[in-house]
Amino acid sequence: MAMNQNREKEISEIVRNIYKDMEGGKTIDGLTVANSPDKDEVRELVNALFRIVFPGYFRDRSVSTYSPEYTLAVTIEDCFCRLHKQVTLALTLFVKKGTMDDESREEEGYRLCKRFFERIPAVRELIESDLIAAFDGDPAAACMEEIILAYPGLMAITVYRIAHELHKLHVPVLPRLMTEYAHSETGIDIHPGAEIGRHFFIDHGTGIVVGETSIIGNNVKIYQGVTIGALSTRGGQKLSGKKRHPTICDNVTIYANASILGGETVIGENTVIGGNTFITRSIDANTRVSMKNLEMEYRTAGERHAEEISQGNEWYYII
Amino acid sequence: MAMNQNREKEISEIVRNIYKDMEGGKTIDGLTVANSPDKDEVRELVNALFRIVFPGYFRDRSVSTYSPEYTLAVTIEDCFCRLHKQVTLALTLFVKKGTMDDESREEEGYRLCKRFFERIPAVRELIESDLIAAFDGDPAAACMEEIILAYPGLMAITVYRIAHELHKLHVPVLPRLMTEYAHSETGIDIHPGAEIGRHFFIDHGTGIVVGETSIIGNNVKIYQGVTIGALSTRGGQKLSGKKRHPTICDNVTIYANASILGGETVIGENTVIGGNTFITRSIDANTRVSMKNLEMEYRTAGERHAEEISQGNEWYYII
Amino acid sequence: MAMNQNREKEISEIVRNIYKDMEGGKTIDGLTVANSPDKDEVRELVNALFRIVFPGYFRDRSVSTYSPEYTLAVTIEDCFCRLHKQVTLALTLFVKKGTMDDESREEEGYRLCKRFFERIPAVRELIESDLIAAFDGDPAAACMEEIILAYPGLMAITVYRIAHELHKLHVPVLPRLMTEYAHSETGIDIHPGAEIGRHFFIDHGTGIVVGETSIIGNNVKIYQGVTIGALSTRGGQKLSGKKRHPTICDNVTIYANASILGGETVIGENTVIGGNTFITRSIDANTRVSMKNLEMEYRTAGERHAEEISQGNEWYYII
Repeated sequence: MAMNQNREKEISEIVRNIYKDMEGGKTIDGLTVANSPDKDEVRELVNALFRIVFPGYFRDRSVSTYSPEYTLAVTIEDCFCRLHKQVTLALTLFVKKGTMDDESREEEGYRLCKRFFERIPAVRELIESDLIAAFDGDPAAACMEEIILAYPGLMAITVYRIAHELHKLHVPVLPRLMTEYAHSETGIDIHPGAEIGRHFFIDHGTGIVVGETSIIGNNVKIYQGVTIGALSTRGGQKLSGKKRHPTICDNVTIYANASILGGETVIGENTVIGGNTFITRSIDANTRVSMKNLEMEYRTAGERHAEEISQGNEWYYII
Repeated sequence: MAMNQNREKEISEIVRNIYKDMEGGKTIDGLTVANSPDKDEVRELVNALFRIVFPGYFRDRSVSTYSPEYTLAVTIEDCFCRLHKQVTLALTLFVKKGTMDDESREEEGYRLCKRFFERIPAVRELIESDLIAAFDGDPAAACMEEIILAYPGLMAITVYRIAHELHKLHVPVLPRLMTEYAHSETGIDIHPGAEIGRHFFIDHGTGIVVGETSIIGNNVKIYQGVTIGALSTRGGQKLSGKKRHPTICDNVTIYANASILGGETVIGENTVIGGNTFITRSIDANTRVSMKNLEMEYRTAGERHAEEISQGNEWYYII
Repeated sequence: MAMNQNREKEISEIVRNIYKDMEGGKTIDGLTVANSPDKDEVRELVNALFRIVFPGYFRDRSVSTYSPEYTLAVTIEDCFCRLHKQVTLALTLFVKKGTMDDESREEEGYRLCKRFFERIPAVRELIESDLIAAFDGDPAAACMEEIILAYPGLMAITVYRIAHELHKLHVPVLPRLMTEYAHSETGIDIHPGAEIGRHFFIDHGTGIVVGETSIIGNNVKIYQGVTIGALSTRGGQKLSGKKRHPTICDNVTIYANASILGGETVIGENTVIGGNTFITRSIDANTRVSMKNLEMEYRTAGERHAEEISQGNEWYYII
């Protein structure tokens, strides 16, 4: 009993100290962040949007579906309301204080959502082209349905295409929350600000980065580990808004682990960028780029002995 | 009030337009996909199978466990029924129309599940060997339990071993849904078609790709960022079914970020492939391969000034 | 009916065989693992700790928040109790049998949790410095809130900082379960044993590995695909506890896909490590390291014909 009273006291002390620490005025304190967009809700919203983009494939299975039209109507309306709420919250948090009252934020949120939903048929048309690119490009794909249900590349592209529409409407923070959800699920990090053409194919995907100001044409293929990134800078926030990422023209293929960097770098049409290359300047159209002189050393077990250092009974290999 | 009536009308218009767009006959429309395997349910199934592979470690903690035998019986039976349902749905969607009626699909689903569950002891024996390989290979592993509960490598291998059994039984789409779940959780992308021997160890794991027609022997170790992949092709679907990925013999170690490519590439027994290598042809047994002439430039701050371009007060580094 | 009775019999047989297999004495059998830490609960705990580290941003939205102080008190107390339970379970499983009875484990668990919660203000102070580093370092960051809500780098660092405190208290297995949760969400694998200074920034993140015995100073920046790892060894468990990973001094920047390896490797202050480098020995302070002679081959479509091998109507590119 005495012990428990003691613990109660100690825990109260801990709570007081943590709460006191939260009043220190740090950015992470955020006690006054009354309402901000909700990370989990945004993830749910993306899942709901998948039920609209791919009706039939990602149905809400808790709902019976005798009438697909009514079910979809409910899904779309529900999705609209929830997106409207998150957009309004995002405006509340991110638009400069005093420039908009509650009612006009709600109005603006509605207007942005309406424009977003009007764009859905156009977005679906692009995603259909991406699906066909994925099927054409991958000999391991058994059928289109497998790609829709299982392929991380199509998932990441779909989320990017949705988020990019919201980005174009200048909705704050939600587009990035959406693409970071896809990043978390797939290891593919496409900034919602990137501009990407039709028929885009990503294979395997883990480790891909496509930066904010990248421009990518039609029929482009990208493999795992590819970075379409910025040249390293010390500029930080001062470079905000400048074109820092490459332009990739139509029909370019970029194989695994290639890095293409810099805002003035342009990869010409039909060019193939080989695996593991590191490219910081423009490449002509119709060119194939690969690593030269990737010399390797081959040594047999006998030849190795001289350089190995015994560690007890184990050998230590410097490779 | 007027505003709300207006919004109601606008949203109805949006719903109509999206629904109309869904009737356009695109593959993604799929309104007639009445029943397809369910991505979330497959993930739940994998979690349930973990409770069978590692009983005691991933118990359903909502269930009391005075009698582990009865609890496991319930877990196994439940898992069987749910897998049976998903296999039947997969057959419905992916087997050619008209070649099988509902009842025979249900029968075939049962038969495939039965054969899968009969293989569980053999699969568990392989996974035990993988666990031992992980413990032996990693100085940071405090104990076996830590590996079972926390290591992404063992998670991805376990899911692969389960999915590979279903793949061998020609169950459509489910094996890939399973390995893509592991891919999403771990960044390790092992195609269910790959053949992998005993005592397989993956460390760290993020960014690993093991292609569909890879063959991997016993006691193989693989580190983060390794690709066992295809040579790039323009063949796409025409190469379906051909051996496009390497063969890795027993006791081979492949260090971080190495790429080994091509269906005729064979890495001989006991060979060590160094980090960051790029291998497109066969390597003899008992060989050590590493990058040669990886020359680097070292410059001090003073030497750098000439090539730097001032950008306001910031320096722009081309690296 | 006959069919169903037959199936019932077959499934019973399957259950019996699997249960029998579980009594074979393998490590994965674990039927006697009565109580072990729970992976899902640990993930929930991390989420709850985010509500303490970033109050206001990751609120439990099922709770009304008229009084933030009371809500936080409840969150902290609840978090304490749940962590206490998991720490006690970890001690049960991982402390040598017979060295501690149930009551002293519970006492020890309480003592460790108390010390952990006392450290939270210090941990929050470090995380505030990481947030500022992220904002300063990324021109694509629109505002601090976006980083808190969406950036995987800050998520992984936060989880690491929490787990590192538990690691210093010698709490078994939980720290690794926590960092592996972050690894799964972000592709960033920071071992809880690593020592990392203030103002740490990770961009993009996927594919980063920071090993157990790494030491990292203040103001260090790391990009996607970077490994701060061990030299490959055959030592396995025999190397447990030795310093196997590098030391990175203050103000170092390490660009994408660089690998820095070895326990005696020290990267001096203010040094910049270029992308795709492979470093196995120490580098002086104030140095810039980049790849030399990364020669590439450029061929146009015409030049390529000689080396291409026709495959039906497709060209096969060896790259």
